[in-house]
Amino acid sequence: MKLPAPMTLGQIAEFIGGKVDGPADLVVENVATSPMAAAESDLAFVFDKQLLKQIDQCKAKAIIVPQGTKLNKPTISVARPNLAIYKMLMVVGSKRYLPEKGIHPSAIVDPSCDISPDVAIGPLVVIGPRTKIGARTKIMANTVIGGEVSIGEDCLFHPSCMIADKVQIGNRVILQQGASIGADGFGYVTERPSNMELRMAGINELSDEPNPLLKIPQIGTVIIEDDVEIGSNSTIDRATIGATRVGHGTKIDNLVMMAHNCQIGTEVILVAQVGIAGSCTIGDRAVIAGQAGMKDHIKIGKDAIIEGQAGVMRDVADKDIHLGSPSYNVREYMTVHVLTRKLPSLFNQSKAMEKKILDLQNQLDELKESIKSSSVFETSKK
Amino acid sequence: MKLPAPMTLGQIAEFIGGKVDGPADLVVENVATSPMAAAESDLAFVFDKQLLKQIDQCKAKAIIVPQGTKLNKPTISVARPNLAIYKMLMVVGSKRYLPEKGIHPSAIVDPSCDISPDVAIGPLVVIGPRTKIGARTKIMANTVIGGEVSIGEDCLFHPSCMIADKVQIGNRVILQQGASIGADGFGYVTERPSNMELRMAGINELSDEPNPLLKIPQIGTVIIEDDVEIGSNSTIDRATIGATRVGHGTKIDNLVMMAHNCQIGTEVILVAQVGIAGSCTIGDRAVIAGQAGMKDHIKIGKDAIIEGQAGVMRDVADKDIHLGSPSYNVREYMTVHVLTRKLPSLFNQSKAMEKKILDLQNQLDELKESIKSSSVFETSKK
Amino acid sequence: MKLPAPMTLGQIAEFIGGKVDGPADLVVENVATSPMAAAESDLAFVFDKQLLKQIDQCKAKAIIVPQGTKLNKPTISVARPNLAIYKMLMVVGSKRYLPEKGIHPSAIVDPSCDISPDVAIGPLVVIGPRTKIGARTKIMANTVIGGEVSIGEDCLFHPSCMIADKVQIGNRVILQQGASIGADGFGYVTERPSNMELRMAGINELSDEPNPLLKIPQIGTVIIEDDVEIGSNSTIDRATIGATRVGHGTKIDNLVMMAHNCQIGTEVILVAQVGIAGSCTIGDRAVIAGQAGMKDHIKIGKDAIIEGQAGVMRDVADKDIHLGSPSYNVREYMTVHVLTRKLPSLFNQSKAMEKKILDLQNQLDELKESIKSSSVFETSKK
Repeated sequence: MKLPAPMTLGQIAEFIGGKVDGPADLVVENVATSPMAAAESDLAFVFDKQLLKQIDQCKAKAIIVPQGTKLNKPTISVARPNLAIYKMLMVVGSKRYLPEKGIHPSAIVDPSCDISPDVAIGPLVVIGPRTKIGARTKIMANTVIGGEVSIGEDCLFHPSCMIADKVQIGNRVILQQGASIGADGFGYVTERPSNMELRMAGINELSDEPNPLLKIPQIGTVIIEDDVEIGSNSTIDRATIGATRVGHGTKIDNLVMMAHNCQIGTEVILVAQVGIAGSCTIGDRAVIAGQAGMKDHIKIGKDAIIEGQAGVMRDVADKDIHLGSPSYNVREYMTVHVLTRKLPSLFNQSKAMEKKILDLQNQLDELKESIKSSSVFETSKK
Repeated sequence: MKLPAPMTLGQIAEFIGGKVDGPADLVVENVATSPMAAAESDLAFVFDKQLLKQIDQCKAKAIIVPQGTKLNKPTISVARPNLAIYKMLMVVGSKRYLPEKGIHPSAIVDPSCDISPDVAIGPLVVIGPRTKIGARTKIMANTVIGGEVSIGEDCLFHPSCMIADKVQIGNRVILQQGASIGADGFGYVTERPSNMELRMAGINELSDEPNPLLKIPQIGTVIIEDDVEIGSNSTIDRATIGATRVGHGTKIDNLVMMAHNCQIGTEVILVAQVGIAGSCTIGDRAVIAGQAGMKDHIKIGKDAIIEGQAGVMRDVADKDIHLGSPSYNVREYMTVHVLTRKLPSLFNQSKAMEKKILDLQNQLDELKESIKSSSVFETSKK
Repeated sequence: MKLPAPMTLGQIAEFIGGKVDGPADLVVENVATSPMAAAESDLAFVFDKQLLKQIDQCKAKAIIVPQGTKLNKPTISVARPNLAIYKMLMVVGSKRYLPEKGIHPSAIVDPSCDISPDVAIGPLVVIGPRTKIGARTKIMANTVIGGEVSIGEDCLFHPSCMIADKVQIGNRVILQQGASIGADGFGYVTERPSNMELRMAGINELSDEPNPLLKIPQIGTVIIEDDVEIGSNSTIDRATIGATRVGHGTKIDNLVMMAHNCQIGTEVILVAQVGIAGSCTIGDRAVIAGQAGMKDHIKIGKDAIIEGQAGVMRDVADKDIHLGSPSYNVREYMTVHVLTRKLPSLFNQSKAMEKKILDLQNQLDELKESIKSSSVFETSKK
């Protein structure tokens, strides 16, 4: 990756917030895409512990490393590797093929739409009536947008996104390809109490008669605030009434499911394949790790962390960290987890103790018997 | 939300099956979208327990509440809140932008198709040869339908759905955006026994030689019966031979995976991110909660409930409720779950008992010793 | 399913590698799609144990069965049923509607693309600048391909796939409908240390001030090697730097998530809804069962098996089999699992033992007391 202009290690260190160990005036022009494939003229990143052990094999003339790393070649050490990568990659950049300003002739945009002049709409995009799109927003090929949708400025929607009627999207929102915003929430009711309802009420006479699941109209919407990113093939459902809301700066990975009426705070992180049932509330800066799920109406506190695959069945306090299914505090969980793996020895120990207790009783009985006989003897002796 | 015409509380109560507490002739014209944002002229719904505690803050002139709620303002109390919501929302409605009758000029429909005159096909829809579409069905933008597909009457397919060749879809079926019906099932075989097969057969001499996974042709199809709804980005795979079948009235949430040859009963509920491996059978009215999974060839009984994240590895009887991974009966599971959290105290108790047992042995030994010496004494005394 | 030409049982047995029990010259023309629906003139497959019990109801004149099955009608017995199915279905085939050679007039292909003459590009496909497509590759309707993408020969991309800029795809790759290749990896960093970082560093003074998640440019790509298949609505993210790589012959089911920079070996199987976090490495022929997940930077060994719903938090050795969340060796896991279900009796036993120990102590105390008094007596006697 070629730098836009040659830079000295000193300049780079200043730019990324690092410290040079070696000649600050050494000039680099290229950044290696992989440390092991670096050329001798490259600058490389090495942050991985495994890679740091094999660093001798890296031919780069200078290396960006984590604080506290000592090497036999020039380095820039940084306290926060990801921030350094972020800053370098923002400089290096990478050409992506985005649609050009204007509306591609193959796009089908309803004439009632309010489209800012600097918007770029790619081929085969479909946009319904009275939708409004803010300045500089780019919409890539095959994305379908419904009617009365509101989209802010500087958004980027990758190909084949689906945005249903009346959804409201803020500024600088990124949708990865295949993201689905505003599908109907999953809500049904039966005319007669369903078998499940009967059972919940303690009634066990169930019925085999048809009792159709009637679709509750989902007349609410979705509000996506500024600076949100939503991953590929994720789905954010519209509310039954009111709005499902994703707070500003929140980042959502791929294949995440967010059900109707959820209220997500700001700067929240939802990792891939997370599933959030209806009407959940998630506090600011909470992190929900991959494949975690939560049942409906759960409240997750601010700065809480839900570990991967956790199944949240009860509210989680601010800053609490949960693991397990059903989930609870991670420390308690890991203690329990470690102990479960010791169950075989506990069962053995328990069996041994039981035997030992029997043995003690036997010894005691024998002793009593011997004393008794001895006492009897004594007594008889007396 | 404006009612189509002003209604009295009495009329509404009769319509939704509730009971008025207050003036039955009070007239309302609007329904609040959120109780806390209700205007003084609105009718509001309040069913949430949390919201019921703050009900003083609701300015609505009348409130629909769960049975047994007493307030200082006019109420309509209902036994089944969701049924009341359903009925009210069916009245209130909500404008959605559906394609108009006819075939949009940008749609690419094979001339051999059999399309009823009242069908509405949106922009950029693609339909393959000899596909048949029943009366009044609406197909939204960018949906792709293969050849020889059969689709019933009054269906609604949201944008960007994918329906592969020969799939059969009944009447009144709803597909949410991005739903995928009829992709190939996931089936492979190797020419020579694979390393996994060898291991299953107890053979541990594995091979590093290439042994390609050959794709088994998936020549079956998918049959979706009447009144089914399938969620956004869910995938229902075609059968290897025969058909994957979804029974009538079944409702499937987003991001659900149904593998080849599954047989799903009627009025079943599959919540988001459920995964069902090949050839599973699910009985009528079973409910599979979010992120639950089941291995292949599992049979779930009628009215069974599989709780969220459960991993079903064995058949589940009618009406049984399963939790855990591997799953078993929920009562047993919760008992075990509660006990696992007491493991730290059990381990401590066990350690204490062990110590105590040692102590008992020591006491016993001492006692024996003292008796022995005393006996010796006695004896020697004798 | 009609055979292309009538075949004798002998010919079929030779073709699929089985053994005839009955008249080898018996001619069949049709294969039943379901054994229970077979006509008297059909050949049927019956491999399922349940079905084998009801085999009397199968009217087929000959049946292909697993080795060791004895019936009262002509059979061909085979050692590996799936291989027999594979071979028969390869013969029987099934008509699918694929695009014709050439570029559909509605497709929007950048003139700078390098498209082999035998390529078939369906309606409404969009292909960006400088993309290269190898001979005989078929791209179905509505698929969107970015710029500078490289695609090999004999590929088949089903409808509505999404392939972002610069992705490299080998030969004979199959993408099922809705597959997403090359969306941005999920990587962010904050300018100031985030609350999560602070907590990891043991600092508990968190901040409520905005600290935006900055998007780390994902300038890497995805490399899909030869003979890979990727399931419907699965997502394979591009690398931050370098490439996410899927090795040749690997098969990926539906709704799988593969994060940035993963390195997947050859002939690996990833079952539906698997989630693989960033920078994981998976060895050749590993099998990752449905809904399993692994945290970032995990290494799974060759021929390892990760069971369904397992949550892998540590590296897995070659050939090891893991289950549980967090996962560990399956044998240990199942031992523990069985023991957890015995926890109620262990707790009872433990309580009983505690009582018994108390009882022993009491007996011992009484005994001591009696001895003491007796000793006192003795002593006093003396």
